Amino acid sequence: MRAHMTRVAGTALWEADAHSQPRPEGSNPEAPYQVFGCSIFPSSMAPASEQADAAPQWEEQGHATCPLLFVQLNQLFSTPAGLEWRETARWIKFEEKVEDGGVRWSAPHVPALPLHSLFQLRNCLQKGTMLLDLDALSFKEIIDRVLSGQPEEAELQPELRERLAALLLRQPRHQPTKSLLQLLAELVLSPCQGKAKSWSEPGAQVSETPLKEQLRNQFKKKVPLGTEAAHIAVGEVEFLEKPFTAFIRLRQGVALGSLAEVALPSRFLFILLGPQAKAKAYHKVGRAMAMLLMDELFQRVARQAEHREDLIAGMEAFLDELTVLPPGKWDPSARIPPPNCLPSLHRRTTMHPPDRQSHGNGDMAAAGDRAGLGHPHSREELERTGRLFGGLLQDIRRKAPWYGSDFSDALHPQCLSAVLYIYLATVTNAITFGGMLGDATANMQGVLESFLGTAFAGSVFCLFSGQPLTILSSTGPVLVFERLLFSFSQEHSLDYLEFRLWIGLWVAFFGMVLVATEASHLVRYFTRFTEEGFCALISLIFIYDSLKKMLSLADAFPINWQYRLDNVTSYSCICNLSSPGHSSTGNDTRGARGWGGPEVSVHDASSPPALSPQPPISPAGLSRTQCLGRGGHLLGTSCQYVPDVTLLSFLLFGGTFLSCTALKHFRSSRYFPAVVRKLVSDFAIILAILASCAIDATLGLETPKLLIPSELKPTNPARGWIIFPFGANPWWVCLVSAVPAVLVTILIFMDQQITAVILNRREYKLQKGAGFHLDLLCVSLLMAVTSVTGLPWYVSATVISLAHMESLRKESATSAPGEHPKFLGIREQRLTGLAVFVLTGVSVFMAPVLKHIPMPVLYGVFLHMGVVALNSIQLTDRVQLLLMPAKHQPDLAYLRHVPLRRVHLFTIIQLLCLALLWVLKSTMAAIIFPVMLLALVGIRKGLERIFSLHDLSWLDSLLPGEAGEGAERRRPGRRRAEESGSEGSELVPRRAPEINTSVN
Amino acid sequence: MRAHMTRVAGTALWEADAHSQPRPEGSNPEAPYQVFGCSIFPSSMAPASEQADAAPQWEEQGHATCPLLFVQLNQLFSTPAGLEWRETARWIKFEEKVEDGGVRWSAPHVPALPLHSLFQLRNCLQKGTMLLDLDALSFKEIIDRVLSGQPEEAELQPELRERLAALLLRQPRHQPTKSLLQLLAELVLSPCQGKAKSWSEPGAQVSETPLKEQLRNQFKKKVPLGTEAAHIAVGEVEFLEKPFTAFIRLRQGVALGSLAEVALPSRFLFILLGPQAKAKAYHKVGRAMAMLLMDELFQRVARQAEHREDLIAGMEAFLDELTVLPPGKWDPSARIPPPNCLPSLHRRTTMHPPDRQSHGNGDMAAAGDRAGLGHPHSREELERTGRLFGGLLQDIRRKAPWYGSDFSDALHPQCLSAVLYIYLATVTNAITFGGMLGDATANMQGVLESFLGTAFAGSVFCLFSGQPLTILSSTGPVLVFERLLFSFSQEHSLDYLEFRLWIGLWVAFFGMVLVATEASHLVRYFTRFTEEGFCALISLIFIYDSLKKMLSLADAFPINWQYRLDNVTSYSCICNLSSPGHSSTGNDTRGARGWGGPEVSVHDASSPPALSPQPPISPAGLSRTQCLGRGGHLLGTSCQYVPDVTLLSFLLFGGTFLSCTALKHFRSSRYFPAVVRKLVSDFAIILAILASCAIDATLGLETPKLLIPSELKPTNPARGWIIFPFGANPWWVCLVSAVPAVLVTILIFMDQQITAVILNRREYKLQKGAGFHLDLLCVSLLMAVTSVTGLPWYVSATVISLAHMESLRKESATSAPGEHPKFLGIREQRLTGLAVFVLTGVSVFMAPVLKHIPMPVLYGVFLHMGVVALNSIQLTDRVQLLLMPAKHQPDLAYLRHVPLRRVHLFTIIQLLCLALLWVLKSTMAAIIFPVMLLALVGIRKGLERIFSLHDLSWLDSLLPGEAGEGAERRRPGRRRAEESGSEGSELVPRRAPEINTSVN
Repeated sequence: MRAHMTRVAGTALWEADAHSQPRPEGSNPEAPYQVFGCSIFPSSMAPASEQADAAPQWEEQGHATCPLLFVQLNQLFSTPAGLEWRETARWIKFEEKVEDGGVRWSAPHVPALPLHSLFQLRNCLQKGTMLLDLDALSFKEIIDRVLSGQPEEAELQPELRERLAALLLRQPRHQPTKSLLQLLAELVLSPCQGKAKSWSEPGAQVSETPLKEQLRNQFKKKVPLGTEAAHIAVGEVEFLEKPFTAFIRLRQGVALGSLAEVALPSRFLFILLGPQAKAKAYHKVGRAMAMLLMDELFQRVARQAEHREDLIAGMEAFLDELTVLPPGKWDPSARIPPPNCLPSLHRRTTMHPPDRQSHGNGDMAAAGDRAGLGHPHSREELERTGRLFGGLLQDIRRKAPWYGSDFSDALHPQCLSAVLYIYLATVTNAITFGGMLGDATANMQGVLESFLGTAFAGSVFCLFSGQPLTILSSTGPVLVFERLLFSFSQEHSLDYLEFRLWIGLWVAFFGMVLVATEASHLVRYFTRFTEEGFCALISLIFIYDSLKKMLSLADAFPINWQYRLDNVTSYSCICNLSSPGHSSTGNDTRGARGWGGPEVSVHDASSPPALSPQPPISPAGLSRTQCLGRGGHLLGTSCQYVPDVTLLSFLLFGGTFLSCTALKHFRSSRYFPAVVRKLVSDFAIILAILASCAIDATLGLETPKLLIPSELKPTNPARGWIIFPFGANPWWVCLVSAVPAVLVTILIFMDQQITAVILNRREYKLQKGAGFHLDLLCVSLLMAVTSVTGLPWYVSATVISLAHMESLRKESATSAPGEHPKFLGIREQRLTGLAVFVLTGVSVFMAPVLKHIPMPVLYGVFLHMGVVALNSIQLTDRVQLLLMPAKHQPDLAYLRHVPLRRVHLFTIIQLLCLALLWVLKSTMAAIIFPVMLLALVGIRKGLERIFSLHDLSWLDSLLPGEAGEGAERRRPGRRRAEESGSEGSELVPRRAPEINTSVN
Repeated sequence: MRAHMTRVAGTALWEADAHSQPRPEGSNPEAPYQVFGCSIFPSSMAPASEQADAAPQWEEQGHATCPLLFVQLNQLFSTPAGLEWRETARWIKFEEKVEDGGVRWSAPHVPALPLHSLFQLRNCLQKGTMLLDLDALSFKEIIDRVLSGQPEEAELQPELRERLAALLLRQPRHQPTKSLLQLLAELVLSPCQGKAKSWSEPGAQVSETPLKEQLRNQFKKKVPLGTEAAHIAVGEVEFLEKPFTAFIRLRQGVALGSLAEVALPSRFLFILLGPQAKAKAYHKVGRAMAMLLMDELFQRVARQAEHREDLIAGMEAFLDELTVLPPGKWDPSARIPPPNCLPSLHRRTTMHPPDRQSHGNGDMAAAGDRAGLGHPHSREELERTGRLFGGLLQDIRRKAPWYGSDFSDALHPQCLSAVLYIYLATVTNAITFGGMLGDATANMQGVLESFLGTAFAGSVFCLFSGQPLTILSSTGPVLVFERLLFSFSQEHSLDYLEFRLWIGLWVAFFGMVLVATEASHLVRYFTRFTEEGFCALISLIFIYDSLKKMLSLADAFPINWQYRLDNVTSYSCICNLSSPGHSSTGNDTRGARGWGGPEVSVHDASSPPALSPQPPISPAGLSRTQCLGRGGHLLGTSCQYVPDVTLLSFLLFGGTFLSCTALKHFRSSRYFPAVVRKLVSDFAIILAILASCAIDATLGLETPKLLIPSELKPTNPARGWIIFPFGANPWWVCLVSAVPAVLVTILIFMDQQITAVILNRREYKLQKGAGFHLDLLCVSLLMAVTSVTGLPWYVSATVISLAHMESLRKESATSAPGEHPKFLGIREQRLTGLAVFVLTGVSVFMAPVLKHIPMPVLYGVFLHMGVVALNSIQLTDRVQLLLMPAKHQPDLAYLRHVPLRRVHLFTIIQLLCLALLWVLKSTMAAIIFPVMLLALVGIRKGLERIFSLHDLSWLDSLLPGEAGEGAERRRPGRRRAEESGSEGSELVPRRAPEINTSVN
């Protein structure tokens, strides 16, 4: 076998050398292990045809018949009571080791070994006993067969054989896996006991039936169904003079009773017993065997090998792929935690591993990877059918089969948490926008309308839309438009609601046209650049608004910063009925926004009050309301101030934000079992809100509370529930309305579709497909209805919808130890959204309960949502890169492929666009905001002049029509350099679905 | 060489096999590489004598002559302008790679390679040209010699030789290292430029002199002095049909002009050029060469090898030590960040690497490791001399030589930050304890005494003590004693100060006796168990006190939680001069504690005020002080409340704490260059305080501020500056005082010495030694002086002293990329402490500046200090373990060696002791607190009945007298199990100095 080894080692550069070497004796050139052949240059060395043939055949054979393997290593220890087998390590996907002194399982880690041990193992396999396809039904039978099946030259003497059999048949001592609870319970029950007691008595034989402790073992839960077991037994015994090794494969999985820690059918056994003083080396050889068996490719070889040589060749293929770390720069005893992503088996079998990115198609594979990252460009949802309403029909055809499951899939406690969270966010949003709309339109649309509209539009959308995870809401751009429309109507003496009705009807009509012409097709031009610009803007608005609202509290409840304790006698406020000339406003509009602000009296007491004689008191005993009600006004140095409320509000605000964030992060903390952590994290927002409300209620201060209208009548008594299309305005208004309607249509289309694109990102792994056309239809029809009833207009709200998705994440319960939980997708259903909006509608009657929720708490939740959404976009990462020295930057995929200065430039351009959007939004030019969103697509197109398509494909994604050219249009020199440049850069860990990285 | 390879691989188990193999031809059995011989079982295989001889000889030769090596890999790229050499990777201690597309340096990482490439490299070394000890002065000369020095069978044709020479002599394109600033500047100056411009023109030859860009290269700073360079050049050329390789060692380091990125003398060159289509493989072979050269042991071999075979043998030794990772469980392209600790070279050369923990002495080495972790038990400071004052004399003798440097070592900006930080902590402490002492002793000792005493005692201690890093302060136990003493004096009509004087003198005397008898020797019995109990208690007191102080603000500035906006007219407060019977206290003692609290009026307005007729106003225009001064009292519903102050205080408190913590953590953030981060982190506390003060000043509310007495006269006018020993009390009091003095002595001794032990922990790497006896002498003498002058008594304060040390940490400026900065020790000097105390004394005159600092800010700093100190002890880690499922627990050394249940039990016992101490401290039994500390030592002794010495040696440390026995007394069975159990567990990363892990 020496020749074989060297063939692995040194062929490629000296071809003559390689060819001159003899093939290993007895190895079958057609045997399957040839596939993982030893040459690192298959393209030039090995006949390509042979490989192409072998690979698929192998795939077929392998995939069906390769269950997971649980490997257990038992080691022989000498105790006062004699020799004893003890479990010292186990493997499913990663290694777990019994800490020698710790009597506990280590954390799962990537197995690392000295190269040495593998070579020694190879020697063992070459020289030792090997029984393939042994038919045996019990452990005793296996041992008998093994000991009698020694090769002639190494045959054992009979008495030695008996001693070995007796030794091997002893019951091993397993290391039970205990839950935290069990451990603490034990600790309390028997604190001073040095040893655990549940081990079987020493000297017992392996029993035929599983032991009680095996059945009780917590570890069972971690072992996936269908797993088979492999046993490795190593140790030193004084009566052996040379090592005894055996590798056994059973024909079928056989239950071997109490041999393994958990009762599983066994398939492989490996035994290594040798003379004394080498225990450590035996241990390592055992671990090397486990490392080998754990490898999927070797396992296939081992399951199908017919001769010893097949196994050896499989091992050489394994050696070929090993990664080595230098001794001086790496501490061999350090444990490497399991990586986030593993090279897929498919990759290893099809591409030749050490040369993974082969010369011809490596770049294309990389491009494929990239395209998969974010965008649904190539999805069939957005393919043009060319027929009128073709896309719509396809949407309906696609979504209809899921309709039943859209309700049944909602039966999970997580949905309850999501409903509560999103309900509170929606209600807060409704109140906020309702208040602002009321301000902007002289209460033509107020908080009550906002509630009813949200409830109605949302429910309808959830029932009939294509993407029911979307949450409808009023949005900033719509609000700006309404404000402009109202003042325009006032100036030109038009009836606002009637005018608006016609605009709404036109928008609905245009929307239908867009649906009919499959305009949603254009969504494919919304790349990451556009999405991120929009998403960042909306998130910033969330953050900005919540902070602004908090600061406006300081206006509503002013603090007397000049308050001096010593002047306590000079602060007072009395009701003055005599001279009403001084009185200020009497009409409190602020109540609509959620709190009752105090009146501002004329006395300016911002300067320290002079110790002047106090004003005479008038009709005493009147409260503020009574006083103002009787036409009096308030007079005094303390009238305009409200103590403590603002500061307490800030404490509640900060506390809610911090506790939301902390509780969300609790999932990734090290404390408590996974179930508890998941529960706390899922209900983080509710817990934070409840805690803050409890604190607020305990303190009892009059903080501004959530105010929900409790009567079902239009906020402005001048209007009814139905708007009549004619009467108040000249007849031509209904035609002229088409002009502003075009603007609104662009706005609605952009607002709706960008959100839809973000929600339907491939990384969320949505199963039920999107429905861009259907969604647009729903929104258009709702436009018509809400215009007729004079309710606000609704489109998809990015941040709340993202929060909705995020609260519905599904993750796999970790299976093998060390494996990271996989993101499985979102609980796609219609029920949570529906429940949220029904609750919103019912809220009008739930005012007595909801009125205990302080507004600052809700603003804290808003801030949290904005920050989470902002953290979820790549732009945020890149902005952080701007501040980082290169050596501290994380190892991101695009940083490996795009020069840093180009990355920075891209970031800066994006930031400039964002700043421009922000300025536009803040000024009255906000009405052209939707056009600006369209302009983003143009700017993105212009970026192609500055950036190469290669760079753009990493930083953004390619626009449709470029992707094809892109591969061709590269500059040849550059391309060459890239290809020969370096290896394996495609395997960088992919970003997890973006919304989560920051949250969980 | 095949035989050789297999010898490495498979000897150990089959001895016969190993011996039958021929040695490699021409290898010299005496050659140095024998030391790292290939057998993994040296104890049984290789003659031990040979090894023992070789090792030390090797050491001598090696250590002196082995400078660091900078390795640069140049790779050949074909560009439109022709072939071009480009730097693609470099190594000093770790690998840095040029990101192919990124045109930037990757973060430093541990090099990882496929095993393959190393085998290929070996082939290259076996077959290629090898020139050892080449004498050449320029790169051209080297190339000429190499090309003509080919072995006969592979001689190159002349024209091929010329083409190769021309190719090799081309100037490589280096990848400049840019600072963040340079990069951003470039970005601004030339945003649209695709390529950097500073590269030399293509086709130029390597110049003889260093280029401008080389001299300007930022990377220069990272290369330690004396470093030599190694060049690796790999690439594919179309005109070669078989590979051309050469390994060259120059006799001396020669400056090769512009060949390397930075101008360094070159020593090694490796060239690999081969036919096309294998660029990736060549690249990996080049990296393998770099990995080899980077290895210290191989480097020694390479520097001394005389024949090709020496080099190959060195490489095999290297292969022997490789760590391998399995292909399926590890992504080969993932980059491993540099580990925190590396196996030392010494370990690798002396112990035989794959078998690092050899059978005989592994355990002892481990024990050595453990003993080194925390305790100065074996230090000569605490050895008994047996002579009177012998320890003291030794202390003086030890410290005297350092006295000069104790001042010169303080010249560093870090010391300025430390002074400011500790000064503020000391002043706050002086005020807090001063206030409480004033309360307890009817102002016999007040804030002014506290200031003067602290300044005096602290300065004297800093000037003359053995451990000048210690900060003296009043402590809790002393405060409790003073309170008891004062009430005892009052009850028995004794003069408190005179009584106290005698006690102080007795304590001083007892202290002298303790010094004379070298009682500090007993300190060795204070193990981690005792230290942690004490330190945790003190930290908890810090945390508890800062929170209690904050809550007491709510009493001082009560909030009217029932305040209702609507009743604003009913809140008032007037001065009533007519009926003084209702008036409450008139004597404001609260001012002494730092703020002036408002008076509590009799009206209980906690229930919502009834809208009753307002009371008649009496002499108006009087402020609160005037009113109370005239014997009036305050009447009204708002008199007892102070708006906003408490809540703002809480905001300031929380803000200061959070910003202290955040700024401290800034050092380990990824943002900004290291210099900025270090600066911010060093000045974190000051920045946080300044920011909070600025906010407070901007808002302008009357928050409680730091009040410092500004007049130099005793707080209580009844006393003077000198206490007379006789006169007020009966004569026998001076004798009876000896009884309480015993208690105080125990208290002082324990308090002082535990702190001293904690400060002198070995992990702080103090260079100038401790002075336990000298410190005790200083404290005793100060006791006498402070008793005579009626100032408070002082001992070492744990938390502030730890903060002092922590603010004076020295760390190495990171040298090689990827290396973690090393903790170098503490800036040991007397000047910071002295400055702190002088400033404290001067503070009496700085009142106008200091009075702007709000107290809540200082409490926030206290909270931070308490939390940091609490986080610094292992107990905290272990308490966290209680809540963690085993799989999430960090890989701590003791968890590998002690069963988890034993660890938990130890933690719980410690927590119970802590709880007991807390209860004792809180009740009046506090006076026996020092005795309880002594009891901790007893409990620790008792633990030996529950825990084995092995467990205790990991969780605690052994008491003197046990350490010796400990090694013997292990149970044989257990010991055997441990030895054969597992490998290398000694190499777990040590904890860094404990105080820092949590802070930085």
